[in-house]
Amino acid sequence: MSPSNWFTEQHEASGSSIGYRVGARLADEQTPFQHIEVWRTTDWGNLMVIDGCIMLTSRDNFFYHEMMTHPALFTHAAPREVVIIGGGDCGTLREVLRHAEVQAAVQVEIDERVTRLAEEHFPELCESNADPRARLLFDDGIRYMADAAPESLDVVIVDSTDPVGPAEGLFNAKFYASCFRALRPGGILVQQSESPLVLLDLIQSIHAATREVGFAATRTLAFPQPCYPTGWWSCTLARKQASLDDFREDAAAGKPFATRYYNAAIHRAALAQPEFMREALGA
Amino acid sequence: MSPSNWFTEQHEASGSSIGYRVGARLADEQTPFQHIEVWRTTDWGNLMVIDGCIMLTSRDNFFYHEMMTHPALFTHAAPREVVIIGGGDCGTLREVLRHAEVQAAVQVEIDERVTRLAEEHFPELCESNADPRARLLFDDGIRYMADAAPESLDVVIVDSTDPVGPAEGLFNAKFYASCFRALRPGGILVQQSESPLVLLDLIQSIHAATREVGFAATRTLAFPQPCYPTGWWSCTLARKQASLDDFREDAAAGKPFATRYYNAAIHRAALAQPEFMREALGA
Repeated sequence: MSPSNWFTEQHEASGSSIGYRVGARLADEQTPFQHIEVWRTTDWGNLMVIDGCIMLTSRDNFFYHEMMTHPALFTHAAPREVVIIGGGDCGTLREVLRHAEVQAAVQVEIDERVTRLAEEHFPELCESNADPRARLLFDDGIRYMADAAPESLDVVIVDSTDPVGPAEGLFNAKFYASCFRALRPGGILVQQSESPLVLLDLIQSIHAATREVGFAATRTLAFPQPCYPTGWWSCTLARKQASLDDFREDAAAGKPFATRYYNAAIHRAALAQPEFMREALGA
Repeated sequence: MSPSNWFTEQHEASGSSIGYRVGARLADEQTPFQHIEVWRTTDWGNLMVIDGCIMLTSRDNFFYHEMMTHPALFTHAAPREVVIIGGGDCGTLREVLRHAEVQAAVQVEIDERVTRLAEEHFPELCESNADPRARLLFDDGIRYMADAAPESLDVVIVDSTDPVGPAEGLFNAKFYASCFRALRPGGILVQQSESPLVLLDLIQSIHAATREVGFAATRTLAFPQPCYPTGWWSCTLARKQASLDDFREDAAAGKPFATRYYNAAIHRAALAQPEFMREALGA
């Protein structure tokens, strides 16, 4: 880290770095799973860092949380049961609970300290944690999905860290097979899928592995995310026995809640593939 | 700059930084206008830096150059005369010359050393410099546009540095009035317009100033640009006596040249406005 009043993540895999000007370090702890820091920044609100990797800032997390949630929930005809694997900052859970159709949203985060530190330093992301439809579990998401009842869920959102260490097991066919089994027909799996500019081969492997286990349609949606390497990120959706081409456009256009990035036009736009992604992934 | 083998731009205005792992410094010179460096990076090809600000890398400049060019040229019915103000790396010129309709493309860069260093370190961007339709001038773009014959141009692309220092005069109503006068009916002005997340007020002022001088339609298109602050950038288009809603979609879909980001679907997608931009700028 360098120099004194900047927190910088040097992302070795891409040879690029992103940093923020910081003030005080608000938290610095080693949990049984990882090292978590929270910094106050001068311009981006608070900053959470796990094992040296920037996880989110107060100011720019809306891109990620909205895009991990609303495209899937406005594509599904009636998203009632939702599971979030990871997502300990609770920002994805908050977005999921904005949908009145949702009857139950379970967040399965392995490290309770992520959530407790989010409650303290990102309280706005946790504002729906007391919603009676929400259930916060601190457990192993891989096991949770392996044990989930068949055809019991409508949407599974994998809001994980990078595909190394504890999250590695969330990026393979065995895990996707658990998700496929647990989803009802028409159900959607959402996987955070890194920067298309750096990990296009990972994205290709997610498409291949989800189709291998039976998903009928796959799509990668790219979106800005300033605090992650390259500033450009993606989620990959896989759907059981149905397409991802269309969505409930009228419902998205008339949504009764506020967003900052997502809207119906942006949803339609996110389905467009940049030329190099179209070549690698197909239309 | 920090640490030894990384080049880092600390962007004071946004309190964020972007850096690249570098090897040798290939150029380091003070011109009459600015300080230019070129670095070899480990993962991004070569890196050009002007006055400490990252200008481009070999690997990611395609986003910017394609989006500064193709949306405007596929919107205009018959783009024959094009002027580029700035753009000394010649990447925009190369993209403009991919359009067979273009009969003349003039690049007006104030600092010849930018172009000479690009020829040496970014030769792929300069591969069309010898095209008989191209003309490279090293002169003051503000004066060039003030002196341009009325209704003599179809597209003016302002491929400038940030709106401080030498480029400041490219972001005001007086300059836009010169552009308006020089454009034919249906003509399009393209202005690089910074990060929507940081300089939304600048973007609003570009819309206001271009409409004030007579442009009928304005649109901001956002796109990824990893090497610029926040990794997310924009260009703002203003059109004389015509709309920017539609474009030659069949021509874009059937374009006879390769791109890496732009295609017809991405053009349509870029017309969608993120919710916070729609609120600030209108649809």
